[in-house]
Amino acid sequence: MAKDKTHTIVIDAMGGDYAPEIPVRAALAALKEWSDIAITLVGRADKLNPLLSPNPRITVVNASDVITNDESPVMALRRKPDASLSVALKLLREGQADALVSAGSTGAVMAGAMFKVERIEGVARPALAVLIPTLGTPCLLLDAGANADITPDILQSFAVMGDVYAKNVMGIKEPRVALVNIGEEAEKGSNLTKEAHKLLAAVGQPFRFVGNVEGRGIPLGECDVAVCDGFTGNVFLKTMEGVSKAIFTKLKTGLSSSFKGKLGGLLAQDTFRGLKKELSPDEVGGALMLGVNRVVVKAHGNSNERAYLNAIKQAYNMEKAQVVGKITDAMPKAQTL
Amino acid sequence: MAKDKTHTIVIDAMGGDYAPEIPVRAALAALKEWSDIAITLVGRADKLNPLLSPNPRITVVNASDVITNDESPVMALRRKPDASLSVALKLLREGQADALVSAGSTGAVMAGAMFKVERIEGVARPALAVLIPTLGTPCLLLDAGANADITPDILQSFAVMGDVYAKNVMGIKEPRVALVNIGEEAEKGSNLTKEAHKLLAAVGQPFRFVGNVEGRGIPLGECDVAVCDGFTGNVFLKTMEGVSKAIFTKLKTGLSSSFKGKLGGLLAQDTFRGLKKELSPDEVGGALMLGVNRVVVKAHGNSNERAYLNAIKQAYNMEKAQVVGKITDAMPKAQTL
Repeated sequence: MAKDKTHTIVIDAMGGDYAPEIPVRAALAALKEWSDIAITLVGRADKLNPLLSPNPRITVVNASDVITNDESPVMALRRKPDASLSVALKLLREGQADALVSAGSTGAVMAGAMFKVERIEGVARPALAVLIPTLGTPCLLLDAGANADITPDILQSFAVMGDVYAKNVMGIKEPRVALVNIGEEAEKGSNLTKEAHKLLAAVGQPFRFVGNVEGRGIPLGECDVAVCDGFTGNVFLKTMEGVSKAIFTKLKTGLSSSFKGKLGGLLAQDTFRGLKKELSPDEVGGALMLGVNRVVVKAHGNSNERAYLNAIKQAYNMEKAQVVGKITDAMPKAQTL
Repeated sequence: MAKDKTHTIVIDAMGGDYAPEIPVRAALAALKEWSDIAITLVGRADKLNPLLSPNPRITVVNASDVITNDESPVMALRRKPDASLSVALKLLREGQADALVSAGSTGAVMAGAMFKVERIEGVARPALAVLIPTLGTPCLLLDAGANADITPDILQSFAVMGDVYAKNVMGIKEPRVALVNIGEEAEKGSNLTKEAHKLLAAVGQPFRFVGNVEGRGIPLGECDVAVCDGFTGNVFLKTMEGVSKAIFTKLKTGLSSSFKGKLGGLLAQDTFRGLKKELSPDEVGGALMLGVNRVVVKAHGNSNERAYLNAIKQAYNMEKAQVVGKITDAMPKAQTL
């Protein structure tokens, strides 16, 4: 890519709880922030145009339909070619955009990236990656739910993709890549993880495989990239959410049961709020699809302007860092056993 | 079992961080608590006898060796026939005891129960079950790590065993049995969970299958029994531990960074302590092996006297409730598809 290339980001302006207002406002903020981007907003032109003033860096592409959270993702993509996400995916596939951001249905964005965008050669399955808040720096977990059933070589390709992302977007020189497993010894685990452990150990420098990580070690910050099948990753993610919620609920109930507690809670309020925010997976950024030949970022459905702008920033950073090209280069490193 | 039967509990007196003192003290407390039990302490007689005064309800069986946490469980059981756990398992298998309690290596207790104690007919694999603290009443999670790779019919048998335990030991009339899965709809999940969902739905009344539960729903109290493979269960359990630890560490750091926070933390201290205790999986009780024809309870390695006594109580309650017999009766209900 030439240095002065304009990066075109297509935005599914009808996806998410606060569409189209939030996607539009975040898009305008992004244009102010970065001079080398252009934005294509996809959605109902009659709703989008009133929110915009003429701007040569914004294009509106009309799409009359929208995919909702309660539809079957694959069916919806098939049945609704004129949904905002379907049209955005088409523009992306055709090369009319470099990156896509959507706050719509996670399933539909995942399925769209998997079936409507081309895969990078050597990638059997694209993975959904999310940043997990930890006691240290955030950890990239993949797969977070795109592939429930996989084979050891697919797990290995996830690890290589995660390593590229950590190095180039997170800026970690030698990311600690770990295999999510039960038990710390190499010979522990399921048939899948036992085989995958061997494949990961075989990748070699400059890929830094640090062995197994248990569910406990991820929030404690023991690795920079945690690799697992999508079933395990999703259980991890949802457990993290549920446990945080349970703890804060219990804290609230406990503190409100006495005067001393109430006072303590009031004084500790700033810390509670900050922590709640810090520990929420919602706050760290969008989820990414890795393994397809375009950048696809899924913003949270309930993103506010700042969160949505963060998702655009993530897409922009991935584009600037040429993550797709670097994953393409790295793929032959996988499957070396 | 006759009403006035004496229940004999064999205790691996050399297992755990504070052996033999804590196991012995808990055993003496248990004898005071329940008049219908007898206890067999297995371990080095020269260490145990000085801790005891003559008591017709206590038998000491000498065992010169001990299995440590850093040994391969299966190898250790094979190579150390005179380890306290090996001898205790032998007494259990031969019917010289009804129940076993150990705070030794989890792997060795699991392997011992699986390979040295007979299985209940129709149970392909015994499962490790643990009680998980939730916003509501505790939830029984199984399998927590004994079987990393299983088939749908094995998952179904775990569910039936969990249901029996919840009804008879936890005293829940119609336990909500759920399948740990990703997504709430029946057709979601991995190959394993999709098949298992059908089998669970087929068991029928009075077994109450409430469908899928996500990692998030377990700590929030959405089910009484959560069923999964041992890989998933172990990741869930360890994630819960790690997230709790991360939150309390961050709270401490956050509060200590300002005077207001310090004061708030001081006032809220009782609530914090109570909650930490309440949410720790260590506090809810021991882990159980279900599916073998004797009661096997694994106490936590760092159990204090109260925690160890709780583990003995769990074994006693399972014996009194005739859980083994009831699982034996319930097994034909499984595999009905």
